[in-house]
Amino acid sequence: MKEKKSVPTMKDVAREAGVAIGTVSRVINGCSVRDDYRKKVEDAIARLDYHVNTYAQGLKAVRTYTAAVLIPNTYNPFFGNLVYCLHQSLTDRHYHMLLCCTDYRANQEQEYITMARQNKVDGIIGLTYSPDLIIDDSIPFISIDRSIGSHIPCVASDNFYGGQLAAEKLAELNCRHVAFLRIGSSLNNEPNKRKAGFENGCLLKQLSYEEKILNDGDSIEEFKTFLTSHYHNGHLDFDGLFCVTDEIASYIIHILISLGVRVPEDVQVIGFDGIRAFGNREYICSTIVQPVHDIAETCVNLLLQDQVTSRPPLICLPVSYAPGGTTQEKENV
Amino acid sequence: MKEKKSVPTMKDVAREAGVAIGTVSRVINGCSVRDDYRKKVEDAIARLDYHVNTYAQGLKAVRTYTAAVLIPNTYNPFFGNLVYCLHQSLTDRHYHMLLCCTDYRANQEQEYITMARQNKVDGIIGLTYSPDLIIDDSIPFISIDRSIGSHIPCVASDNFYGGQLAAEKLAELNCRHVAFLRIGSSLNNEPNKRKAGFENGCLLKQLSYEEKILNDGDSIEEFKTFLTSHYHNGHLDFDGLFCVTDEIASYIIHILISLGVRVPEDVQVIGFDGIRAFGNREYICSTIVQPVHDIAETCVNLLLQDQVTSRPPLICLPVSYAPGGTTQEKENV
Repeated sequence: MKEKKSVPTMKDVAREAGVAIGTVSRVINGCSVRDDYRKKVEDAIARLDYHVNTYAQGLKAVRTYTAAVLIPNTYNPFFGNLVYCLHQSLTDRHYHMLLCCTDYRANQEQEYITMARQNKVDGIIGLTYSPDLIIDDSIPFISIDRSIGSHIPCVASDNFYGGQLAAEKLAELNCRHVAFLRIGSSLNNEPNKRKAGFENGCLLKQLSYEEKILNDGDSIEEFKTFLTSHYHNGHLDFDGLFCVTDEIASYIIHILISLGVRVPEDVQVIGFDGIRAFGNREYICSTIVQPVHDIAETCVNLLLQDQVTSRPPLICLPVSYAPGGTTQEKENV
Repeated sequence: MKEKKSVPTMKDVAREAGVAIGTVSRVINGCSVRDDYRKKVEDAIARLDYHVNTYAQGLKAVRTYTAAVLIPNTYNPFFGNLVYCLHQSLTDRHYHMLLCCTDYRANQEQEYITMARQNKVDGIIGLTYSPDLIIDDSIPFISIDRSIGSHIPCVASDNFYGGQLAAEKLAELNCRHVAFLRIGSSLNNEPNKRKAGFENGCLLKQLSYEEKILNDGDSIEEFKTFLTSHYHNGHLDFDGLFCVTDEIASYIIHILISLGVRVPEDVQVIGFDGIRAFGNREYICSTIVQPVHDIAETCVNLLLQDQVTSRPPLICLPVSYAPGGTTQEKENV
């Protein structure tokens, strides 16, 4: 025993593998190396549990302890809170977060995936919008809200039940004529299920309902046209509205106020997401609350679990209802 | 000329420096090396412009193209927007962002600085709260809103002028009896200058003013007690309020509504920060807008500039006023 070392070095790897240190360096730096040499080095790295400092170069045996998070932005309050919760979950497991804002751009999303693979992060958690994202099997990827493929687990709220819960709540709050307002994504994503769930809830509770669905490119002003066309002699045709997000709800409430319709006295409004003022104060409207903390925990657990094959393709987490001033709750509920 | 290579390798560095490849590896991995050897390797790295893959190990000559951002959280809308703008500025310069949420905890802030140094990021941009943060000279650090020391540049809004502008605006809006409401940080930070600026503006405009300053630990409820004590026979003693943040303004407006005071008819309210609903819609109140995009650009430019000695200790960027429904703007302004 000539020397005593607690942490193995590149030299130790070279000795263990029976190769030159330059070969180890080439393997770690991703340069071309003969396959049999590469195997020797990778095996030696695994045996010694060798780490290239903190930012190891990401062989499977070596961890970078960094995950990339792909998200459109952090100024939207839902995204801001999701990034915060993901950061907490990663930090609890001694992981760092490489933040990647995509601005909803498909080419940005794809570039970050390439970049992440080159930098050899341990994995990616992505809330993406590109319909034809290419994600190879070499890097663990957990998707939020979009089903990308059978090899990519998707984590989402139980959006179907959330829609149903909104209808059930409106019925419970004595609404009789309700409407569903949505700006639709053309993507086959999980939040689209809110519509089907709402329709199911209306059928269950025998609520008559109408729907106004805008496409992604449409002007949000069309909601105003829709509501105005349903406003006669100071009276709105609906006594309850379910909006696909809290942001739409907030916009709709502005329109209603401008028409002279009172919320919640004349019409009750439920949104979706659970946005709080300033991120941690009161709910900005009555809402179906997404379990953002649980979504983050589930994503990070799935990302870091070793048994990739046991990853379920879709996990839907339970939502809840929270009053937020735009509904008239009964006294004894 | 035995071989032709476009990208220099660790071997090339060893040859150039006239040392063994193991010595290069030790220098790059931050292990102990004799000073004269270290110098030889660093010089060779600089001459060859050698990069250790993407995550280089951060000698001064080698860049990781990653910056750490220290921020309390991303759910607060001001922080969420700041992180987004910093991300944009870093991305424009082909830098990645390691996001570090600190939850206002001093030990977290210090740990991230240690971590960042160990990971050899190219630098840190921090909005920190610990009064005795230890930041050594080995890593470039740009502070937002706090003067940490003469070797650390601080980037902030022109908070003094922002306070003055609020007073001037209230005067212009025909207010005569105004008040300043603040929850004070005990830290010697830049936003504290809003108070002095406001006082200056009141003097300039001959506005009589009162102040209610809470300490960090105080209950925000004390503002309610203060306002109630100034509310007599359906009349508030003030016709204008300047709140130190939009968040306080939003809270104050709730209190006023509960008292039956109308905003802006009975009292006009100006906040500070420039928070927009959902991050990119309308301002949530009339406000002094912080130039978040410019703050981000300035931080990143300072961080990445080579001439460290030419970094100014404090940069204050211009703010502006934006009406947001809680003031009564004159028709022809």
